Amino acid sequence: MLETVDLKRKVDKAAYKEEIEGLKARLGVLQQEVKNAGLPVIILFEGWGAAGKGSVLSDVILSLDPRGFKTYSITEPTQDELRKPLMWRYWTKIPLYGQFSIFDRSWYQEVTNYRIEQKISSKEIKKRLHNINVFERQLVDDGYLILKFFLHVSQKEQKKRFEKLEASLNTAWRVTKKNWEQNKEYDKYLDVYEEALSATHTKQAPWNIIASDDQNSQHLDIYRTIVQSIESALQAKKDGSIRKIGPGSWDGHYPQMLNLELDTFKMKEMPLLADVKLDQSLEQDEYKEELKKARRRLKKLHNELYRAKRPVIIAYEGWDAAGKGGNIKRVASGLDPRGYEVNPIASPTPDELHHQYLWRFWNRLPRTGHIAIFDRTWYGRVMVERLEGFATDEQWQRAYQEMNEFEKELSEWGAIILKFWVHIDKDEQLRRFQDRQNTPEKQWKITDEDWRNREKWDLYEEAVNDMLQKTSTEFAPWYIIQSQDKKYARIQAMNILIEQIEKELDK
Amino acid sequence: MLETVDLKRKVDKAAYKEEIEGLKARLGVLQQEVKNAGLPVIILFEGWGAAGKGSVLSDVILSLDPRGFKTYSITEPTQDELRKPLMWRYWTKIPLYGQFSIFDRSWYQEVTNYRIEQKISSKEIKKRLHNINVFERQLVDDGYLILKFFLHVSQKEQKKRFEKLEASLNTAWRVTKKNWEQNKEYDKYLDVYEEALSATHTKQAPWNIIASDDQNSQHLDIYRTIVQSIESALQAKKDGSIRKIGPGSWDGHYPQMLNLELDTFKMKEMPLLADVKLDQSLEQDEYKEELKKARRRLKKLHNELYRAKRPVIIAYEGWDAAGKGGNIKRVASGLDPRGYEVNPIASPTPDELHHQYLWRFWNRLPRTGHIAIFDRTWYGRVMVERLEGFATDEQWQRAYQEMNEFEKELSEWGAIILKFWVHIDKDEQLRRFQDRQNTPEKQWKITDEDWRNREKWDLYEEAVNDMLQKTSTEFAPWYIIQSQDKKYARIQAMNILIEQIEKELDK
Repeated sequence: MLETVDLKRKVDKAAYKEEIEGLKARLGVLQQEVKNAGLPVIILFEGWGAAGKGSVLSDVILSLDPRGFKTYSITEPTQDELRKPLMWRYWTKIPLYGQFSIFDRSWYQEVTNYRIEQKISSKEIKKRLHNINVFERQLVDDGYLILKFFLHVSQKEQKKRFEKLEASLNTAWRVTKKNWEQNKEYDKYLDVYEEALSATHTKQAPWNIIASDDQNSQHLDIYRTIVQSIESALQAKKDGSIRKIGPGSWDGHYPQMLNLELDTFKMKEMPLLADVKLDQSLEQDEYKEELKKARRRLKKLHNELYRAKRPVIIAYEGWDAAGKGGNIKRVASGLDPRGYEVNPIASPTPDELHHQYLWRFWNRLPRTGHIAIFDRTWYGRVMVERLEGFATDEQWQRAYQEMNEFEKELSEWGAIILKFWVHIDKDEQLRRFQDRQNTPEKQWKITDEDWRNREKWDLYEEAVNDMLQKTSTEFAPWYIIQSQDKKYARIQAMNILIEQIEKELDK
Repeated sequence: MLETVDLKRKVDKAAYKEEIEGLKARLGVLQQEVKNAGLPVIILFEGWGAAGKGSVLSDVILSLDPRGFKTYSITEPTQDELRKPLMWRYWTKIPLYGQFSIFDRSWYQEVTNYRIEQKISSKEIKKRLHNINVFERQLVDDGYLILKFFLHVSQKEQKKRFEKLEASLNTAWRVTKKNWEQNKEYDKYLDVYEEALSATHTKQAPWNIIASDDQNSQHLDIYRTIVQSIESALQAKKDGSIRKIGPGSWDGHYPQMLNLELDTFKMKEMPLLADVKLDQSLEQDEYKEELKKARRRLKKLHNELYRAKRPVIIAYEGWDAAGKGGNIKRVASGLDPRGYEVNPIASPTPDELHHQYLWRFWNRLPRTGHIAIFDRTWYGRVMVERLEGFATDEQWQRAYQEMNEFEKELSEWGAIILKFWVHIDKDEQLRRFQDRQNTPEKQWKITDEDWRNREKWDLYEEAVNDMLQKTSTEFAPWYIIQSQDKKYARIQAMNILIEQIEKELDK
């Protein structure tokens, strides 16, 4: 892709002046429209050393209201960031709907650096580039506009710039040994960039390669692209058409944009809920003993997880009154309180509603060696949001794939993932509801909403069956917990957890 | 305080069993009442090595629903934490209303450790203990219950425990050199603890010193105190009486609890708004030139701030339509985008409403060397919240002191704090409102609420005058920005900022 760019193009000062002021003013106005339309915009600048990433970013934001954007300068990950999945530090930086996130370097930095330093295998590189495509596709599908700029300079121009920087005492420190290495081994770097760009030049988020030897030409190209892309995204939003194709401000001199194929995942076979037997139970004595045993084993395993730096994610879903809370409490009682966290998931807050729906879960991931228990999860998307119309058909149908991709990434990071569907039958739920209604100290546990949900039991059962069939992958399987007898259910969940952790640690 | 505790007390197994189960069950029920009443509870365990802090914490949480508490184990601060004010990592960990935060070691750890290692002067120790008292008092005033436990063991018992731990391969690693040092220099440590405990044994948050040589007695004392304290806090909440005095489960064998005196601060003299002249203006040419000059100086200063690791906090308040946004934009245009952040402050989110009101600002502090610009601030407490009745009289009247204390801590941390009141007169506001109303592309800027606020101009003016008089301290002064002419106001704000930063960096 890079060789198709004409680096010799120049724009003279007069022509530049004439056009640039209009573009900048237009961008200021567009920011307001972006806000009103709730369009989230991500702009990232990648490119050669001394190609002008930082200064073009500083220039662009002068046209913007500082309350409507955040800028991020991506450098080496911190200790905290290294204890999270690779894409975590980018997911947590996506903008609110109607706002801009602007990146000086981005998720492409690590992958190209590592490639050059040969820190990771070419298979690993492929996987990372794939994960980047998934990340960008999920955001674009949710309505984000992603503008990717690669600032391209020639070897000669780069050398000139480094020399100029070095000539002044004030700027000499900015030129590093690595910079010179890049200039000397220009062709090697060119290949690495070319590889990364080609593999991520997708219809969702195509690259804009900007000839940067001439600064006037560079600035004009960038401003034009930003303005045109935002305009067409706003138009598409107005028309109700979903932008499946990126800004496309380029006139076809690039190789074709990639059409991404969706991954398929190996599935674990799951029964239909109607076929699940609920006849298991435990006597109090047996329960007490099993509980004690399971706690002891869990305690030991938690130590081992910590040493192996493996994170664990336990997702709880289940019928109202199925006993999720008590189940979680027993599992938690076997864990070191300094190493786990329970995340109760309620309705999304306004900030959460103004991000792609997985954002709030990315923000709640455990650190390596820690355990995160989710009391209700991202699967709300294909249950309550599906049934109550909070997600459109297109949105919840797409979500199965997105959630599998999400869990796949967590699993590649090293996470042990278990998903529990805490199951009872309809009669048992009625008994428990009535019991709650009739016992003063339990009344707070039952609300009108519970009764309303109960009326939709059959619709929910269909949704749950769909979910179990479509998202029980080998790396993040569902387990149906038989909670007709709560004691049995607790021991069952603890034992599955123990067994899976042991299996994973043995690998 | 420590010598008054009888470490020889023992409780036999039968008496222990009889009482403890009831207390644990009661705690489980109380958690529900705590949730319903929205009572936030902080429990912290401090004490000698091997006194049982970790195991008592693990035991207490077994009685609690994991969705209702978080536990924190406080160790050495991380790199990120070291770039924030001392109390930052504790402020960010206070519980939501109705929830528990439980600490294994706490804000007392650093101060006692440093004291022993003689890392900080005795003056610095005093200041830190004072800041702890302020922190606890602000929370208790807001309705938090703070239960502080100090687990006390004798030198002999501690030695026995260390030896026992060392005897087993599985636990030997838990006994460190520092532990043994503590045992050998028991008396020195005793003095340091005594000093810290005495200085923070306040009416708001008194210490509970727990004799821990006998585990049964220890557990009973802790559970009794927790249960009784929560019960009395719930009762006080029900009665509408504000707990100005802590749990007080102790029968007077401690020295008297401290009555905290409030700090007084050196104030900067401020005019009344009515006396502020608004006759300044700038011609376009002059403005352009001044802007360019100010930007250049700011850019240079931002670099120096970074090297000096000094954070800057700029707080903007002002009349609707006074031009805050445009002013912030010009200031920001002189700054390195990687080193500042603009925080627009809207109505609090549900999570924010369920914490003491300063919590959301503690969460938005810059790192050292960075600049945080607040577009509206914590002063909402004494303006909109006062006038609209979102804060009770008692709450907003107390807030002046709390905000001065907040800023004092930031200033001690090294922050340069500037507060701008962006000022126009009532006629000018009307002109701008009408202009917005009549200009299609500006209409989004004007809402019914703006007109309603305008009707209350005189009440707001009174509130602003109160605020300026009561919170313009030497370490965080207010500046009135004359924004009748926006150009003048921008240059004025930038020049004040430049001048203050230069002054502070020269010190």
